[in-house]
Amino acid sequence: MMLKDLRIAVLEANLELVKRGLVLYTFGNASGIDRERGLVVIKPSGVDYDELRPEHMVVTDLDGKIVDGDLRPSSDLDTHTLLYREFRSIGAVVHTHSEYATSFAQAGMAIPALGTTHADYFYGAVPVTEPLSDEACAGQYVHETGVAIVKRFREQGIDPMAVPGVLVAGHAPFCWGKNPDDAAHNAVVLEAVARMAYRTLTLKATSEGVSQALLDRHYFRKHGAKATYGQR
Amino acid sequence: MMLKDLRIAVLEANLELVKRGLVLYTFGNASGIDRERGLVVIKPSGVDYDELRPEHMVVTDLDGKIVDGDLRPSSDLDTHTLLYREFRSIGAVVHTHSEYATSFAQAGMAIPALGTTHADYFYGAVPVTEPLSDEACAGQYVHETGVAIVKRFREQGIDPMAVPGVLVAGHAPFCWGKNPDDAAHNAVVLEAVARMAYRTLTLKATSEGVSQALLDRHYFRKHGAKATYGQR
Amino acid sequence: MMLKDLRIAVLEANLELVKRGLVLYTFGNASGIDRERGLVVIKPSGVDYDELRPEHMVVTDLDGKIVDGDLRPSSDLDTHTLLYREFRSIGAVVHTHSEYATSFAQAGMAIPALGTTHADYFYGAVPVTEPLSDEACAGQYVHETGVAIVKRFREQGIDPMAVPGVLVAGHAPFCWGKNPDDAAHNAVVLEAVARMAYRTLTLKATSEGVSQALLDRHYFRKHGAKATYGQR
Amino acid sequence: MMLKDLRIAVLEANLELVKRGLVLYTFGNASGIDRERGLVVIKPSGVDYDELRPEHMVVTDLDGKIVDGDLRPSSDLDTHTLLYREFRSIGAVVHTHSEYATSFAQAGMAIPALGTTHADYFYGAVPVTEPLSDEACAGQYVHETGVAIVKRFREQGIDPMAVPGVLVAGHAPFCWGKNPDDAAHNAVVLEAVARMAYRTLTLKATSEGVSQALLDRHYFRKHGAKATYGQR
Repeated sequence: MMLKDLRIAVLEANLELVKRGLVLYTFGNASGIDRERGLVVIKPSGVDYDELRPEHMVVTDLDGKIVDGDLRPSSDLDTHTLLYREFRSIGAVVHTHSEYATSFAQAGMAIPALGTTHADYFYGAVPVTEPLSDEACAGQYVHETGVAIVKRFREQGIDPMAVPGVLVAGHAPFCWGKNPDDAAHNAVVLEAVARMAYRTLTLKATSEGVSQALLDRHYFRKHGAKATYGQR
Repeated sequence: MMLKDLRIAVLEANLELVKRGLVLYTFGNASGIDRERGLVVIKPSGVDYDELRPEHMVVTDLDGKIVDGDLRPSSDLDTHTLLYREFRSIGAVVHTHSEYATSFAQAGMAIPALGTTHADYFYGAVPVTEPLSDEACAGQYVHETGVAIVKRFREQGIDPMAVPGVLVAGHAPFCWGKNPDDAAHNAVVLEAVARMAYRTLTLKATSEGVSQALLDRHYFRKHGAKATYGQR
Repeated sequence: MMLKDLRIAVLEANLELVKRGLVLYTFGNASGIDRERGLVVIKPSGVDYDELRPEHMVVTDLDGKIVDGDLRPSSDLDTHTLLYREFRSIGAVVHTHSEYATSFAQAGMAIPALGTTHADYFYGAVPVTEPLSDEACAGQYVHETGVAIVKRFREQGIDPMAVPGVLVAGHAPFCWGKNPDDAAHNAVVLEAVARMAYRTLTLKATSEGVSQALLDRHYFRKHGAKATYGQR
Repeated sequence: MMLKDLRIAVLEANLELVKRGLVLYTFGNASGIDRERGLVVIKPSGVDYDELRPEHMVVTDLDGKIVDGDLRPSSDLDTHTLLYREFRSIGAVVHTHSEYATSFAQAGMAIPALGTTHADYFYGAVPVTEPLSDEACAGQYVHETGVAIVKRFREQGIDPMAVPGVLVAGHAPFCWGKNPDDAAHNAVVLEAVARMAYRTLTLKATSEGVSQALLDRHYFRKHGAKATYGQR
């Protein structure tokens, strides 16, 4: 079986989303990339999570052409492949309709950095894309979703590894990471951060974000050469 | 036993509502119809879900006359039968008092199409009926509930298969589908959509719905001749 | 063992509160009364629910004097006994700090009858007491809590069997019923109703209650001589 | 093994946080102190809760110098040790990012004493610190977090055993108690109290706290020489 370890990692990332309550029925999808071979492994479309096996994962090239697999890939494939092409440092992509992050996406609101839980994972606000134009919706819609994501990061000069997630306006979040486990972890934390941001903003609509100094302190405690968190 | 497969399907739809946390105690009810024979299979009234067996399901004709069964049918039977008579394309009806959908019903507010989760299932806002008149409450109340539902769909020219659910003002949602499994699935997704709409609207009271183009894109990705989602 | 069946029923009502997520740690208490003998059976104070056995229940007379039992009774005993003395038709009392009902109590707001879930159980708003005076807090506080409850029902001419629950301002709900199972059931439904009322009011602060006609229709469908719900 | 019983108690306090849903992944940490020996036992940093064993706990002196243990201690160690040095009556410290308490911290809002659930555990509002200055964030940040906590208690003349918890602005709560079990219990109740305060304030933004008389009544029912709650 091609890319056996990556298939298992992608499957486990998908199951982590179920375990953490981020997906309902067959919603959501995770993928991973083998950068050396230029191959993407992604969840098939509309298959029950209970029945998912590593061999069900679909393998495509970076243009989304199926290389291995009998099932139809996730309908969001073209967003995943575009992100892999444009964000060269990422190794996995996760998409969910998790309740609170999706609610911010539906409101067209970025999630501001309101506390250190956020700062531990996202170095600044989690941005929201512009709404897709009618042409984009009617055209290469899934591809255009990726275009809107990349546009937002480029415009605002955001490093996708420092802010490993985005809200697609009127849709839901996409997250990523260095591997499938990391991307799923970021998606779970994004939902937790969105829950807290929702509570904070409904308590006090004018909440400002934390200071840059606090953002720096927490983000760089967990990330980069001087990270001190954990056992490594 | 008459209509054995339909009894099992109706029982399973009822149990799906319990499993997904949509019902408390004996709240809620699901039914299904055998269109060829013109017979409706419905949950009995006030029986614990733990004890429900296929043989407890009550069989009635399209006017609600009991054809088979020792137990009293769901007290909402007359709404179910009216929906079957008026909406000829539906094969099952589900009624719950699920928390968030019911809260919109209590507020007398339709659930606007605020995102693609909604658009994947409901082609436009999930409408709310007018409040029932005092005469309707004091008269053939359960029947009148169905009348109010049908009136709302006719007035607004909504296709019940494109928007497979409604909120009854001051009461709670009814959903439907092509079979009991599909109707229960729609009820579960309606609750998820209502949760997200609640969060979106409490974050930002002025949220507008998604564009018609996005609504079209998502709805027709999952429905109709050109659907591409899933493995079929 | 005195009053064996009532001890078991009271224990089971206490455990139902745990099962339904209404209590944390040792919060909450349920009691029942044997009207013929004038004896009350109540949960002991501060014992873990996991360890509760029928023989731990404390038996008192209607003035709260301990008749049987080695443990100290619930610290809310004097409220229970006062309710039994004043509301002669009730057979059991349940007190919880369930999240949403308690939040209404803390806000000093009655729960209006916003929908049929409410109307199925409570024939009108669930009232809130006045805040206790400083003298009442410093005096026979637990007794005064009961006094405030009874005062509210008498002033507003509410039948305690038609509205089997109340919110004590700044504190939490008390519910009752014809027996411990019924009182616990009412406490669980009150919390569900409070959840929906919270959502409804935060969606739309000006929500009015349902019409008297709808309230009548639902309440009397489940209660009184003409009730049609369920199998009895 | 040094301090075996305290290691077990600290481990169990950490696991109680998981069981009650207060922590996600490796978030959160609990510690305990042996006052006679002047030694602190604290959770290691970034180890999965599933894998935590008593021997993984790290032992330090009151200045945070590691005395026993192969793993790196919790990154919040310096806050714990400062609290032990300044609040001489406390025996354990717990830190979580529990959702609702953290949301108040992010909003920079103290949790007012809105009801008796609060009054049973916290004798007055749970205070929030000032935001940390940029210098504090960039300097001895974890130590400065403790400084901000102690400053708030000293300024407002609050007894840390009467209000066994605090919100660090833009961060999250710290709680404490006479031993690890007690500190974890306080953290769990703080989250429940924060949930109710959130609901109360979003229902009615102008809610005032309970009266001093009610606060006295409930707090001293559970605390101090005249406590009457429970079996001791």
